[in-house]
Amino acid sequence: MAACTAAQQLLLVLSALGLLAAGAPQPPNIVLLLMDDMGWGDLGVNGEPSRETPNLDRMAAEGMLFPSFYSANPLCSPSRAALLTGRLPIRNGFYTTNAHARNAYTPQEIMGGIPNSEHLLPELLKKAGYTNKIVGKWHLGHRPQFHPLKHGFDEWFGSPNCHFGPYDNKAKPNIPVYRDWEMVGRFYEEFPINRKTGEANLTQLYTQEALDFIQTQHARQSPFFLYWAIDATHAPVYASRQFLGTSLRGRYGDAVREIDDSVGKILSLLQNLGISKNTFVFFTSDNGAALISAPNEGGSNGPFLCGKQTTFEGGMREPAIAWWPGHIAAGQVSHQLGSIMDLFTTSLSLAGLKPPSDRVIDGLDLLPTMLKGQMMDRPIFYYRGNTLMAVTLGQYKAHLWTWTNSWEEFTQGTDFCPGQNVSGVTTHTQEEHTELPLIFHLGRDPGERFPLSFHSDEYQDALSRTTQVVQEHQKSLVPGQPQLNVCNQAVMNWAPPGCEKLGKCLTPPESVPEKCFWAH
Amino acid sequence: MAACTAAQQLLLVLSALGLLAAGAPQPPNIVLLLMDDMGWGDLGVNGEPSRETPNLDRMAAEGMLFPSFYSANPLCSPSRAALLTGRLPIRNGFYTTNAHARNAYTPQEIMGGIPNSEHLLPELLKKAGYTNKIVGKWHLGHRPQFHPLKHGFDEWFGSPNCHFGPYDNKAKPNIPVYRDWEMVGRFYEEFPINRKTGEANLTQLYTQEALDFIQTQHARQSPFFLYWAIDATHAPVYASRQFLGTSLRGRYGDAVREIDDSVGKILSLLQNLGISKNTFVFFTSDNGAALISAPNEGGSNGPFLCGKQTTFEGGMREPAIAWWPGHIAAGQVSHQLGSIMDLFTTSLSLAGLKPPSDRVIDGLDLLPTMLKGQMMDRPIFYYRGNTLMAVTLGQYKAHLWTWTNSWEEFTQGTDFCPGQNVSGVTTHTQEEHTELPLIFHLGRDPGERFPLSFHSDEYQDALSRTTQVVQEHQKSLVPGQPQLNVCNQAVMNWAPPGCEKLGKCLTPPESVPEKCFWAH
Repeated sequence: MAACTAAQQLLLVLSALGLLAAGAPQPPNIVLLLMDDMGWGDLGVNGEPSRETPNLDRMAAEGMLFPSFYSANPLCSPSRAALLTGRLPIRNGFYTTNAHARNAYTPQEIMGGIPNSEHLLPELLKKAGYTNKIVGKWHLGHRPQFHPLKHGFDEWFGSPNCHFGPYDNKAKPNIPVYRDWEMVGRFYEEFPINRKTGEANLTQLYTQEALDFIQTQHARQSPFFLYWAIDATHAPVYASRQFLGTSLRGRYGDAVREIDDSVGKILSLLQNLGISKNTFVFFTSDNGAALISAPNEGGSNGPFLCGKQTTFEGGMREPAIAWWPGHIAAGQVSHQLGSIMDLFTTSLSLAGLKPPSDRVIDGLDLLPTMLKGQMMDRPIFYYRGNTLMAVTLGQYKAHLWTWTNSWEEFTQGTDFCPGQNVSGVTTHTQEEHTELPLIFHLGRDPGERFPLSFHSDEYQDALSRTTQVVQEHQKSLVPGQPQLNVCNQAVMNWAPPGCEKLGKCLTPPESVPEKCFWAH
Repeated sequence: MAACTAAQQLLLVLSALGLLAAGAPQPPNIVLLLMDDMGWGDLGVNGEPSRETPNLDRMAAEGMLFPSFYSANPLCSPSRAALLTGRLPIRNGFYTTNAHARNAYTPQEIMGGIPNSEHLLPELLKKAGYTNKIVGKWHLGHRPQFHPLKHGFDEWFGSPNCHFGPYDNKAKPNIPVYRDWEMVGRFYEEFPINRKTGEANLTQLYTQEALDFIQTQHARQSPFFLYWAIDATHAPVYASRQFLGTSLRGRYGDAVREIDDSVGKILSLLQNLGISKNTFVFFTSDNGAALISAPNEGGSNGPFLCGKQTTFEGGMREPAIAWWPGHIAAGQVSHQLGSIMDLFTTSLSLAGLKPPSDRVIDGLDLLPTMLKGQMMDRPIFYYRGNTLMAVTLGQYKAHLWTWTNSWEEFTQGTDFCPGQNVSGVTTHTQEEHTELPLIFHLGRDPGERFPLSFHSDEYQDALSRTTQVVQEHQKSLVPGQPQLNVCNQAVMNWAPPGCEKLGKCLTPPESVPEKCFWAH
């Protein structure tokens, strides 16, 4: 992981010679397009039957498709923290120890957020002269110390939490929208989302922010990092009026169509400005489609099992496309096991930087794969909270624990695997298999329906290889301090900076810290 | 359906003027590539994660992909009879009345086959001067009167039944392989299939037959119809040595890779001979992937529910690509609801012929769709035996009956929907819903997991439209004489023509006709 690529070496040399500052070749711009709850199966190129993503399909045809690319967690906040730190949530603190194997995130009442001790991608890119902007959802904590501009971003337009709501601003405030340091309004108020019709123009706003930033930075002739973390495909799903009702797939499809259109506009702008060859673009999603919200407000995980919140493939395998004309050859498919954490290390590599050497970095530099087709043997770890649920190595996935959600939740209608039921696999009690993992061959059985026979040679071989990897991982693991254990109504977005100007400050309730309750 | 296309009109005029015979433009050659038990989700272009079909993906990129194309039955024989007659099995006799809603086909003990009263595509194409060849599996009856050369084909290399076996030639004979009128050997004997390793060179033989036929007919300058009905993806799945072990998907994937390679060779030959612009090629499959044989010997139905034998989307939605360079524009996707029976009518249209006017033809001429993007409103009917199980109209699918298989079969391990279970939908008793159909929106919910609420306006509207179509269909329906009711051990392939020369005649047992037993 610490090996220096040719590109890195070149940039380091150039940097040492002071050539980068003197108008010599700049490192490439970096654009990460991160979707929210979009599923692997939502892209035409991944087989969505309505095929409504012509721009993403074109992006894949012009770039490299990764069919085996994974998020670091089946839930939003930990996945995003992993992307920006290059580290598993168990290391960067984005997990909970309040109960066993629980998914935790950053609702308004969360006390925690991204620790100062973590080095985020934009902080590091700054050192190579990048200007960094986040558009959309931050989700790494909403209290002042967690603000994205305190963690390396130069600009922000978007929100700290999910666009849940509308709230009455009494029990819970509506989520603020920030421009840089200050709130400029709240969802459902200055930034309307019509829960009945699904209309909201947020994707258009986020797209314009992206286009403006690219044009401005291009004019400044300095390298930029754009983290476009939009959220139209997260329930409550929304689209602009011009896209509502245009999809064969209902409202969810309308949102996808608008996003696809926006991606097309971003790529076209890069091409029209003549900077596509100097701009690395990567498209992916934070976790699997939220089947709990399907079919009206949830997407598709294609042939994979279950969805968001689970450590089955549907929960963590993501749509993924790399695009860098002139560098990444067109029309390629890579079966490299990739991780959202690789975007951290790969971005650093593009910038001629090395990842921090004082900590474990889980992300790999995928440039050798993208540029030269090199394949790297590496595991994918699937965590829920502090529990390693599964590991994939090559084609084999071993489940150490299985769980969807509790019987209680399930019988009340919360179903993470609607229409799917694999006996002994999609369990509603936490089932431990650490001694005798359930192992699947993901090539023959991408849907995790047919566990290998415990008695087969194939099982024994896969077991011994995955066990070794798990033992090494667990032996050396030093968990970070868990950040998602304590909640407090008083820390909600009552009075964000800027609220005075807008006359929108709310009075927080009494501070009562308590253990957050994470149901699944 | 009887409307004459511009192409037909042109050809009819040319034909009337005697120009076709006088060296004027010939009607295009027709190549139908029919797979056996291949699933919608087996193609890279339809999202198979291992993406091992580069030639089929290229075919789609150069032609028109139909994501909503259906077989006429969830089982092989009726589906093939429908393709070649343009008529639903309930009309052409390829069904049983021995029990309610049963799938029937043509095992060796079947008495019946394609009736003489049916007009088959090759018979009709002959009138337009086509030379017709079938390569591979016939499956419309194996007794002499059902022989493909009695039904319009000029040449045959292949087998009358499935390549099940090996048999001991005592209780059951091994399936013969024919060249034209005579058996040239039997599977597992002269044409080995290694059940242990999966090795068989049949796909290579079938490919060479196709290539030779194309070259010969090209040299003769006469139009040809090639019906390439290969069966490597039907269990027992096989591949040639050079392909065994090459797939990420196991043996099934090896078979797919070999087929994909063969399709590439066929398309390349057409291009190299300079006749691609005069050759219409269509790729599809006879029914959904046989999930009962998965994962080792069954394919993928992508995001769809269940598989072969069922009238859920996984049983009858098929991979489908039309390719005709210079006529069908490249890179198109058509959401026209298509049917395998359309290949009958479309082929006739290509040949400048009209479908028979003395009977109901269910197939539509898809040329207006393929050439001009026209969309036609038409229903898709899903039958099991004599029972109309479901209908799709536009985006709405209404189930009049649901059934997978019996509890008895299911508890003994026969599972047509492994890992899938939609309450009240994937039923193990035959459930009648004719008064209150289960209705799904296939755009929002291609996996048939979320029935529309009976109380919704959407349901009521879809109900009234589908009910009208069903009533019209059933009112005018005159079922054909059922051909798949009677079985008899004596009619098996004991002594096919040619057995004398080979010294491979077997003595049939006493003739005891009896009702065939169809379990599901």
